[in-house]
Amino acid sequence: MKEPPKEISLDPADWSAMRALAHRAVDDAIDYLATVRDRPVWQPTPDSVIAKLQAPLPREPQGAEQAYADFREWVMPYQMGNTHPRFWSWYMGGGTAFGALADFLASTVNPNMGGGNHVGNYVEGQVVDWCKDIVGLPRDSGGLLVSGGSMANFVGLAVARNAMAGIDVRAEGVAAIPQPLVFYASTEVHSCAQKAIELLGLGQAALRKIPADAEFRFDVSALERAIAEDRAAGKKPCCVIGTAATINTGSVDDLNGLADICQREKLWFHVDGAIGAVLTLSPTHRKLVAGMERADSVALDLHKWLQVPFEAGCAIVRDRNLHRSTFALTPEYLEHTERGLASGPLWFSEYGLQLSRGFRALKVWLSFKEHGVDRYGRLIDQTIEQAHHLAALVKAAPDLELMAPVVVNIVCFRYNPGGLSVEELNALNEELLIRLHESGIAAPSYTTLNGEYCLRAALSNHRTLHEDLESAIDAVRRFGREWAIAAASEGR
Amino acid sequence: MKEPPKEISLDPADWSAMRALAHRAVDDAIDYLATVRDRPVWQPTPDSVIAKLQAPLPREPQGAEQAYADFREWVMPYQMGNTHPRFWSWYMGGGTAFGALADFLASTVNPNMGGGNHVGNYVEGQVVDWCKDIVGLPRDSGGLLVSGGSMANFVGLAVARNAMAGIDVRAEGVAAIPQPLVFYASTEVHSCAQKAIELLGLGQAALRKIPADAEFRFDVSALERAIAEDRAAGKKPCCVIGTAATINTGSVDDLNGLADICQREKLWFHVDGAIGAVLTLSPTHRKLVAGMERADSVALDLHKWLQVPFEAGCAIVRDRNLHRSTFALTPEYLEHTERGLASGPLWFSEYGLQLSRGFRALKVWLSFKEHGVDRYGRLIDQTIEQAHHLAALVKAAPDLELMAPVVVNIVCFRYNPGGLSVEELNALNEELLIRLHESGIAAPSYTTLNGEYCLRAALSNHRTLHEDLESAIDAVRRFGREWAIAAASEGR
Repeated sequence: MKEPPKEISLDPADWSAMRALAHRAVDDAIDYLATVRDRPVWQPTPDSVIAKLQAPLPREPQGAEQAYADFREWVMPYQMGNTHPRFWSWYMGGGTAFGALADFLASTVNPNMGGGNHVGNYVEGQVVDWCKDIVGLPRDSGGLLVSGGSMANFVGLAVARNAMAGIDVRAEGVAAIPQPLVFYASTEVHSCAQKAIELLGLGQAALRKIPADAEFRFDVSALERAIAEDRAAGKKPCCVIGTAATINTGSVDDLNGLADICQREKLWFHVDGAIGAVLTLSPTHRKLVAGMERADSVALDLHKWLQVPFEAGCAIVRDRNLHRSTFALTPEYLEHTERGLASGPLWFSEYGLQLSRGFRALKVWLSFKEHGVDRYGRLIDQTIEQAHHLAALVKAAPDLELMAPVVVNIVCFRYNPGGLSVEELNALNEELLIRLHESGIAAPSYTTLNGEYCLRAALSNHRTLHEDLESAIDAVRRFGREWAIAAASEGR
Repeated sequence: MKEPPKEISLDPADWSAMRALAHRAVDDAIDYLATVRDRPVWQPTPDSVIAKLQAPLPREPQGAEQAYADFREWVMPYQMGNTHPRFWSWYMGGGTAFGALADFLASTVNPNMGGGNHVGNYVEGQVVDWCKDIVGLPRDSGGLLVSGGSMANFVGLAVARNAMAGIDVRAEGVAAIPQPLVFYASTEVHSCAQKAIELLGLGQAALRKIPADAEFRFDVSALERAIAEDRAAGKKPCCVIGTAATINTGSVDDLNGLADICQREKLWFHVDGAIGAVLTLSPTHRKLVAGMERADSVALDLHKWLQVPFEAGCAIVRDRNLHRSTFALTPEYLEHTERGLASGPLWFSEYGLQLSRGFRALKVWLSFKEHGVDRYGRLIDQTIEQAHHLAALVKAAPDLELMAPVVVNIVCFRYNPGGLSVEELNALNEELLIRLHESGIAAPSYTTLNGEYCLRAALSNHRTLHEDLESAIDAVRRFGREWAIAAASEGR
């Protein structure tokens, strides 16, 4: 046998240099988070940086030092901004320093959470059990951590499809289902439900959207009529998707009302609680989601209101066997080995789409231990109180208009100086939003309610102070007045 | 308006304490990685630790210090072991220190990579373009980073379904497809293909598995016959799944042969390159995957041979419009805003299942820059050379038996002292594997080839040295002899 060549590895040639670089990165990161308030919430990425990010495949090493320097110069400054106290776009968490450190530790030990006998699986089991406690489902439910709400809803709806079809869908496919399945949701349902239904091969007609009521909630009596119609038409009502805090306005469906219907009609009850499932942690507001504990499956996010860094969602399915039998490729009786690395009772890959899985459980576990969930409950109350404060500021301003009731922590409003058509108001508010972003003062997002463009502030941010709301409102009104003056001088 | 309450946040009360904790964590993590060789590759998690991980939901804060102490004591020691030089189970990367640091930085800046105008999207665009360069698809292909091979294959097969169905599957569902679709793969295809086909609603019969040839490769002539049979039976051949390095043995399908058939028969050509797509980085071995560049879609992993920490996979689809039109919920002509945070040309959520997405692009970008891909190519060559060295050790030992040809870096072998039945050999080797794990010496995994249980070493590990292979082989033979002596004394 010939002499083997000298091996290379991807470990650093000099561990002390890597250690020093990591310490510098820690200092930079802590500085970044501790001073976030001093920076603009958003600024555009310069064209010169965009050009640098269109490089050829690097063949030669640049080294960790140079790569980190490029990160600091090109990447760190031009972020989305959701770590900033005045970021209220879409619906996100801001992350935390300890959560980021947890991701470092997770990637250092770097286990594959698909299965096997190692401690990570017990950490994930612990965290998933805590999520069951939060939503009120029993600890013997199935559950796993996923990338976020979209995947958590996909998991729940996939199990619903397979459980309700009346045939073996895995074997025979959707085409063999004798009657077309119908899933019900309100028109305010998150778009990921449609994406899931389409990917599951059911077709868009399988998701029947019931017009929401005036407060953007599921119209329960309209649902009952729709179910009766569909049964009469030979279809098979299958699943009702209730939403615990909708993305547009934060409205919360009447989950007990929906659960009653599901019980009576023998339908699968799925709750999209990506935003609002964690309302149970607030003694004040938990009544909003009463009935969630009756669901067959629940989707929730940890990277929204609870501020765990991306990605962290959770899917919970009451019937663990139905959950497993939707995804597992080995039958339950085919045991894993009894000892060694390939043993162990927890094989999360049998409960979802991924086989290789990262250790996202660690940041959830460490964050829950750091803060305790009662603090999350107080934070939830605080953000809801802030939303009401923002709404009060809107109502108190003669040139601002509140566009939807504030139920939890989402506020939809617009600048309306009077005398403008809907189209003019839409264009004006669209322009004001962009000016707000470009000013770096605040970053709400927007939505359209009944054809009317609204500024939309989702106050899920753990760094927001009341003064941030006030300065944002001041900026909206100032930009609005500037626009009006410019419009008058141009004779618009 | 009443005086607002004093706000809390989840930021640390004392940034300097958090900074100090983060520095301690860095020192512990660097120590952990730099000394990994000194520890056992695997040890079971003690029952006392498992018990601690079945706690009630923590209501009160324990603080970051205590949470970290629990991590160090309960979690850090009982890992899967894939950071260790003698871990060769399944098929994994070991991660790197700089890759872990990248995850810390990603979670510090914590952008949501679903879309919007911020630099992260350009980083992901850069990384995905590099992946296109690696597999040989044009830069105007569609692509996005995903959790790993399972999701990358799901994406490719979902696009194939929708592109080949002949109807609007999103609108009408799978049941409206006039002729049953058939996807083809060899019996050695990864199980995630079946999972994807089932979830997509197509039914198991839609995945026709063609028996692999004697070298565990796709039997191209059997494929041609199957396509003809299915056409004659009124089915619609739709897609061929070629595998660039199978999980069991590392065999590589004849991708040019499959591409020729797909071209002639007008089928979608999907390549599962989770393991082997990156073989193009080796000038010596890239010919193995010749033909991959003709694929319509390719799945690859960065967290396997390239050692990026979990999770990092990539899906690439040659026709960007077909890719987008499978997942996007807004039509192309409906533009995002022109300026501000909600503008930007790259909305990766329109190319996959997730809406909220983490910044996994950063660790890929930083790792590629740190090492340069030529080093990856040398590492690939090294691991293949190590596999041949291990195979040579097996062949040179009279009591060991090589069970499959070594094509890339997977070696299947068993201990066979002679005179035992297949069942006895299977039981013996199963026991030897567990003893290897429990000894902490080495962690190969196992597979079953033609009913025969094999020890299986996937040498994807960047820390393995030749001496590790030799000590593992010594241990297998020693445990085997001990077993034989014990069996003789027990009169077995």
